[in-house]
Amino acid sequence: MKQSRRTFFKTGLAGSLLLATKGLHASTAPEVPELPKAAAENPFHLSCAGYTFAHIEGDKLETTLKTLQRMDIHYLCIKDFVLPLDADDAKIRVFHQKCAEYGVKGYGVGPIYMKTEAEVDRAFEYTRRVGVKVLVGVPNYEILPYVDKRIRDYPDIKYAIHLHGPDLPIFQDASVIWDKVKDLHPNIGMCLDIGHDLRNGADPVADLKKYHTRVFDMHIKDETDSSKAGRCIELGRGKIDFSAFVRMMRKVNYTGMCSLEYEKDMKDPYMGIAESYGYLKAVCKLA
Amino acid sequence: MKQSRRTFFKTGLAGSLLLATKGLHASTAPEVPELPKAAAENPFHLSCAGYTFAHIEGDKLETTLKTLQRMDIHYLCIKDFVLPLDADDAKIRVFHQKCAEYGVKGYGVGPIYMKTEAEVDRAFEYTRRVGVKVLVGVPNYEILPYVDKRIRDYPDIKYAIHLHGPDLPIFQDASVIWDKVKDLHPNIGMCLDIGHDLRNGADPVADLKKYHTRVFDMHIKDETDSSKAGRCIELGRGKIDFSAFVRMMRKVNYTGMCSLEYEKDMKDPYMGIAESYGYLKAVCKLA
Repeated sequence: MKQSRRTFFKTGLAGSLLLATKGLHASTAPEVPELPKAAAENPFHLSCAGYTFAHIEGDKLETTLKTLQRMDIHYLCIKDFVLPLDADDAKIRVFHQKCAEYGVKGYGVGPIYMKTEAEVDRAFEYTRRVGVKVLVGVPNYEILPYVDKRIRDYPDIKYAIHLHGPDLPIFQDASVIWDKVKDLHPNIGMCLDIGHDLRNGADPVADLKKYHTRVFDMHIKDETDSSKAGRCIELGRGKIDFSAFVRMMRKVNYTGMCSLEYEKDMKDPYMGIAESYGYLKAVCKLA
Repeated sequence: MKQSRRTFFKTGLAGSLLLATKGLHASTAPEVPELPKAAAENPFHLSCAGYTFAHIEGDKLETTLKTLQRMDIHYLCIKDFVLPLDADDAKIRVFHQKCAEYGVKGYGVGPIYMKTEAEVDRAFEYTRRVGVKVLVGVPNYEILPYVDKRIRDYPDIKYAIHLHGPDLPIFQDASVIWDKVKDLHPNIGMCLDIGHDLRNGADPVADLKKYHTRVFDMHIKDETDSSKAGRCIELGRGKIDFSAFVRMMRKVNYTGMCSLEYEKDMKDPYMGIAESYGYLKAVCKLA
């Protein structure tokens, strides 16, 4: 494990020196690194929500990976536009190899919308075949009992319901999710999107404190306003108190991922992504 | 003054919403904003050293200004590749107008190399005609007495000697400059390049404390190592303790500019610039 982690970060460092290259092409099958133990100070890891790259031009996967390599970020929540839900095992293997060339590991999948039992089945099987332990889901309310049934067949998978803020009529914020899942299997919880939580008038710091036992993933962003009018903005320029949020992650010992989901300038998000990670890295050190 | 500042930041905000546009084309002559009073917490201002854009492709001035607008940074130290030393008053006026369209104000010029009395004369006149109060200079040792003579003719101009680290045989770090200028006119001092200071084995935090009365400008960067082998890297990834540095700027009440001078990936520096400003903004809030 120790050796594996060292090799991984060595790869990451070497890679970061190669500006806009095609990454390190290992001649043997690339090593897919284990998730490292937490950094000394923080129990959580910085990561990226794949949706950030939904509207960029060109090869979405390659650009995602080059960007994360340059940002020194090593964990990705996989959106289906880089790995389709019907990808077979060979395609999944190639996908993981490509990620590893850039020092990146897919840690979860989603968000995946599911309205039918068949879609729930497909999402769980996809998650299992991809080999990750976090499934970010967007289920309809009426399908939740079926999710609650099927989760028992996948004891390693956490089902993290995404919250949408005031734009959709379901799962608007963390407390809505909590009320819907608190009596279901403990592996059904939430992907705490702190921007949408704030836009619904909630307090992401207080919600993390209240609901942390069911927070399995996070979407990190900042917002111009704590209302429906709020728009995504570079971290530190908006209304979210990231210092308080990072301190709360430590306090509740959140050991999961903090995935930046940057939704501004989506055709040219690179500088906003970089400013946001820079800001977040400093907060993680100083908060 | 208050009105002017409000107008300025309004312009800045509106501008930041226009992604990669040509800025705000005022139909009347653009207002060149006054330097605002310091932010509530910090006596200094974030700014940019024009050299950062020395090796980019395309229109260097326009790209510099678009980048600063997007970063929400409003002060620029002007390098001669965007405003030549022999620019006449009309050219200087057009330059300031263009900066103002992007919410940017040139606050200083340089670094300017000077080996002869004629070059010293030309640099002082250029600074006066550009209308700024900071001249970042790279004089030879033997020309210093002449600088000391001429500075008396420009009571509004601070002459900030740039320090180079171990790469050049003169002005390697802050203490070398201090020894050379401490008995000269009090408006001769230094541009504290914290990266080169560190690369020469000095401690930028301690040097700011010791020499702050003669620190008139700064080049902010991070370095991979505190030796000649050190290379510029994104803020927060290297050896400099920015939290301690920001706290020292407050302690000595440094009221000047903190100009990012980013010297990595100089053909494609944008993500590194953005990550660095993001990091620095968080440190300025939390340190």
